[in-house]
Amino acid sequence: MAAIATLLSDFGEQDPYVGIMKGVIASINPAISTIDLTHLIPPQDVAAGRFALANAVPYFPTGTVHIAVVDPGVGSVRRGVAIAFEQGYLVGPDNGLFSGVLSRFAAIEAVELTDSQYWRTREPSRTFHGRDIFAPCGAHLATQIPLQELGTPIDPATLVDLPFPLCRVTPTGIRGAIQSIDTFGNLITNIPATALTEKNWSVLVGDILLPSSQTYSDRSPGEFVALIGSHGWLEIALNQGSASDRLQLTLGAEIEVLFRGTLAS
Amino acid sequence: MAAIATLLSDFGEQDPYVGIMKGVIASINPAISTIDLTHLIPPQDVAAGRFALANAVPYFPTGTVHIAVVDPGVGSVRRGVAIAFEQGYLVGPDNGLFSGVLSRFAAIEAVELTDSQYWRTREPSRTFHGRDIFAPCGAHLATQIPLQELGTPIDPATLVDLPFPLCRVTPTGIRGAIQSIDTFGNLITNIPATALTEKNWSVLVGDILLPSSQTYSDRSPGEFVALIGSHGWLEIALNQGSASDRLQLTLGAEIEVLFRGTLAS
Amino acid sequence: MAAIATLLSDFGEQDPYVGIMKGVIASINPAISTIDLTHLIPPQDVAAGRFALANAVPYFPTGTVHIAVVDPGVGSVRRGVAIAFEQGYLVGPDNGLFSGVLSRFAAIEAVELTDSQYWRTREPSRTFHGRDIFAPCGAHLATQIPLQELGTPIDPATLVDLPFPLCRVTPTGIRGAIQSIDTFGNLITNIPATALTEKNWSVLVGDILLPSSQTYSDRSPGEFVALIGSHGWLEIALNQGSASDRLQLTLGAEIEVLFRGTLAS
Repeated sequence: MAAIATLLSDFGEQDPYVGIMKGVIASINPAISTIDLTHLIPPQDVAAGRFALANAVPYFPTGTVHIAVVDPGVGSVRRGVAIAFEQGYLVGPDNGLFSGVLSRFAAIEAVELTDSQYWRTREPSRTFHGRDIFAPCGAHLATQIPLQELGTPIDPATLVDLPFPLCRVTPTGIRGAIQSIDTFGNLITNIPATALTEKNWSVLVGDILLPSSQTYSDRSPGEFVALIGSHGWLEIALNQGSASDRLQLTLGAEIEVLFRGTLAS
Repeated sequence: MAAIATLLSDFGEQDPYVGIMKGVIASINPAISTIDLTHLIPPQDVAAGRFALANAVPYFPTGTVHIAVVDPGVGSVRRGVAIAFEQGYLVGPDNGLFSGVLSRFAAIEAVELTDSQYWRTREPSRTFHGRDIFAPCGAHLATQIPLQELGTPIDPATLVDLPFPLCRVTPTGIRGAIQSIDTFGNLITNIPATALTEKNWSVLVGDILLPSSQTYSDRSPGEFVALIGSHGWLEIALNQGSASDRLQLTLGAEIEVLFRGTLAS
Repeated sequence: MAAIATLLSDFGEQDPYVGIMKGVIASINPAISTIDLTHLIPPQDVAAGRFALANAVPYFPTGTVHIAVVDPGVGSVRRGVAIAFEQGYLVGPDNGLFSGVLSRFAAIEAVELTDSQYWRTREPSRTFHGRDIFAPCGAHLATQIPLQELGTPIDPATLVDLPFPLCRVTPTGIRGAIQSIDTFGNLITNIPATALTEKNWSVLVGDILLPSSQTYSDRSPGEFVALIGSHGWLEIALNQGSASDRLQLTLGAEIEVLFRGTLAS
């Protein structure tokens, strides 16, 4: 058995919080391989965590346990949950963090993590459920403990939904917004490849009109590129530079896709 | 056998130093799982390393080998040591880095790492003992080489002690200081939960008086919270914000706990 | 079998790109251990990636697969390659990233990664070959798929060479330059230990003359040190401080080694 657990959080890398979660997992089952997705989600930014998790989950083997902790409501009434879905399991706070994944893959069943025998301690910290509840419950799932053992069944339809912001169709194309900016300064919009139904399209960013490209190097270094990024979203990049720095656009900034001929018509 | 070695250092993440230590470990025994605690200890800040290590060690399985390298005296006369304690092993420079762990768990025995057959090379670099001495000695320990094989026995009482700064009891409560600031901007004091013997207490930070809380969300977003943090220290936080940014407090800043009624008396 | 794959990139740690590559590797063979070298290579800085990779590779067990992605030309005509060398395998773009390793270890054979059955998908992204081509091909190599299966043989002599900048011998010593600055602010020159043929030498940095040292603590805290660093290059450091900050030197800045007596002669 080759059990894999991924970890995603807003814990940063300065403190040993993530290492501690791995210690808790290894204490339950040292054969579990842990893989970090990222721990640099901006503090308490559930939407950013949801976006990163939804992009990463499809690339993992079936049965992987994804433990995610972006948890501004820790210690309050928000539920801790484990969810079985077609690709594996999700474990963490019920605050919408998993709703990106669940918009792509259906939930099969879910429980609230109420059975304290699977926690690290029956008196968990009020501020670090990642260590005391989510990591141990995830480790037990990765060790083939059935989901139902971990707590009270809940209806997956009651899980908190934090939907991706939608783009909208206009008479001339599609209007959307920047939903993420990656480490290269690439601007990732909320317009999926599947919405680009016309073969030829261009993108209006402020007063700059960018034709569609296939890859960064379709343009000269220092030129802008509009293309379908590796996660399937329309993306605006600068060949060998940072589009974000150059355009001074921030999250939520609006952009518009124009279908062929529509600008002139 | 499921051997685990943790790594903690001030090497940062920009250079491949940590990866190189893992390569050295894998060259000795590829079955050892390595877990990073943190590599963002401020350069040569032994006290910060000691604090992080002491907080993390309790969560690892018995037998884990903890390799820690914050080592301003590398290449000088400071000793390289391996220490057996009740939870596992500690390997690194003898400069106080392990004294936080050893204030909680007794040392059983210790050696100076003098036997060069367990080093990566008999002519180690004068500047990178992490690679040439500590990683290989730690890997050998994780491979069941007895501690005594690694060098000359030393009396654990001679290990360098760098004690945690102590808080002191006052007529009205306890006076302490900020000993760590985490990535969320939470201010971690040197006042342990065990010192808060009165049921009701509040904290005076500058001229702000904070009542005790159980968890961050006991207060509204943007309000301060004083609580026992996940490592067992009194902590001052800002619900959904950074207490450090808001209060402009730095390491060493003094704070005072007041027991019930004492402010008015 | 204990297969090891290392990962080096300029992907940063904010986005889940590296985690996704590990998910792809685990999907092919979950028994492969992945070790991060660094993901903080400055964006698209092939020379910095080449330097880090060349320094790290010697410390890994024979047979390790090194997957490296600093790839400004992704999706263009640059080749994707896998190279067998005496220590293991190299997988990534053919843009000079591997030329530092190959200046120390001879290439045995190489292929262009043209056989799409070993890719993650026959329609790879134009912008993320790390995920779709390099990670899966590396995972197959680590699973004992013969190199020749992965594509078309190419002559190793045709691989792009990006040579290390050379230092030059002068009548009085050696003139070189800063080729890397590490996280401690140590200035790593392009002068190898093997060029320091005279026993006594000193280094002229601007108008400061530094005698040679064995280790950082040969000088008092706050004093400069010139020594052979752990990777075998002449290095200028500041004991318990940052030489880079103090000297305000940047990459490419020239320095000069003076052999004994030559300054006075």
